[in-house]
Amino acid sequence: MYKLIYWPFLPGRGEFVRLVLEELGVPYDDVARRPEAEGGGASVVSGHLYGQGDLMPGFAPPYLIDGDLTVAQMPAICHYLGLRHGRVPADEGLRARALQLQLTIADVISEAHATHHPLSSGLYYEDQKDEALRAAATFREQRLPKWIAFFERALQRVGQTFLLGGEISYADLGLFQLVEGLCYALPNASRHLLDGAPRVTALHQQVGDRPRLAAYLRSERRIAFNEHGIFRRYPELDAAD
Amino acid sequence: MYKLIYWPFLPGRGEFVRLVLEELGVPYDDVARRPEAEGGGASVVSGHLYGQGDLMPGFAPPYLIDGDLTVAQMPAICHYLGLRHGRVPADEGLRARALQLQLTIADVISEAHATHHPLSSGLYYEDQKDEALRAAATFREQRLPKWIAFFERALQRVGQTFLLGGEISYADLGLFQLVEGLCYALPNASRHLLDGAPRVTALHQQVGDRPRLAAYLRSERRIAFNEHGIFRRYPELDAAD
Repeated sequence: MYKLIYWPFLPGRGEFVRLVLEELGVPYDDVARRPEAEGGGASVVSGHLYGQGDLMPGFAPPYLIDGDLTVAQMPAICHYLGLRHGRVPADEGLRARALQLQLTIADVISEAHATHHPLSSGLYYEDQKDEALRAAATFREQRLPKWIAFFERALQRVGQTFLLGGEISYADLGLFQLVEGLCYALPNASRHLLDGAPRVTALHQQVGDRPRLAAYLRSERRIAFNEHGIFRRYPELDAAD
Repeated sequence: MYKLIYWPFLPGRGEFVRLVLEELGVPYDDVARRPEAEGGGASVVSGHLYGQGDLMPGFAPPYLIDGDLTVAQMPAICHYLGLRHGRVPADEGLRARALQLQLTIADVISEAHATHHPLSSGLYYEDQKDEALRAAATFREQRLPKWIAFFERALQRVGQTFLLGGEISYADLGLFQLVEGLCYALPNASRHLLDGAPRVTALHQQVGDRPRLAAYLRSERRIAFNEHGIFRRYPELDAAD
């Protein structure tokens, strides 16, 4: 059985991996979410940070353990799972495109995180709040419109529901979770932009309605967004209503 | 022949792709570096930004065009080229590891860029210089030591010259260029850290001594670092000598 190692108290980048595992319907052991008495807890994650611990080193979680193999880096894990379960196209060009799109999603994630931590992830939000106000305004007004337009354009070119065509891929799950996160963190800015992105909105709806995903989203396995991790709701960073 | 589309006046993320092409010894058309009268210039790049233009959309350069296929995102391009030329291992685990390492290098690149543009890539350095001083100090003192130690540890585990073992991969070329960039941008901080990382230092030396790479680095095709792009030498952001 796969083992997933990720912080137990926030969705973060680990959630992008969970969505792939849940959509595949494969069982996995979400190790750090076990009770501490059963080997869970945040120390499971922190013990492997920066390539420490006994895993083949990865810098930061999520880590997926598949037998003797450990894969780190969210897009690399999603790509690995897609290949392993025959859920990426055979065509190398489409495979490269799936990876490219997930890397683009990962870039938006990093920028979204930087809105509340522009100076350093090592400082508290409160210690960089003035800078965050400036960074978030630029993100909302200059960057996010471009990102959303990019995904809308990508779907328009394909002319089908999903980013690679008629079949769902991990990149669609990634875009779903990105939209979820943006709507949590910056509801006003996101609503406004998504109103102008009907294809992205439809993809988000379709992914969330898939039977396995819908059941997962209702389950206790789904961790709610909160003020840890990437997508945080600080109303002062959002646009006015 | 491959076409590479990237800003003609800075090494940036495009250079990580050039190093792969140069080490492979395959010819490529570095389109934007042609004279403008022959179809070159920065407008070649900017016309495709954010998925505009007639390519299958990629958000930002570099773009690699291989016949009908366009691949964007530096790590996806490197992975595609490695597969296409039989230069990644057949083993899916090692392939995932190569990708994971390149994604980690891409993360360091983004953090290095954020030292001089902590608030936004859309503002000038001069308009975020105070913030850059704080961000760069945290990068130098808290983050960079962890990144260098991570790669040193990864090489130690493998016990051979390169990140995947005895054979060079695109991740080694990436680590070479990362070291080049860090030594340009933050020479004092980098020298200090590399003194404690003999395996990373040796890998950097070995890669730079490879015949094709050494010839490339001496050629006019190699663009010198400068105060555009990722790695910029602003002495006030470096450690004291």
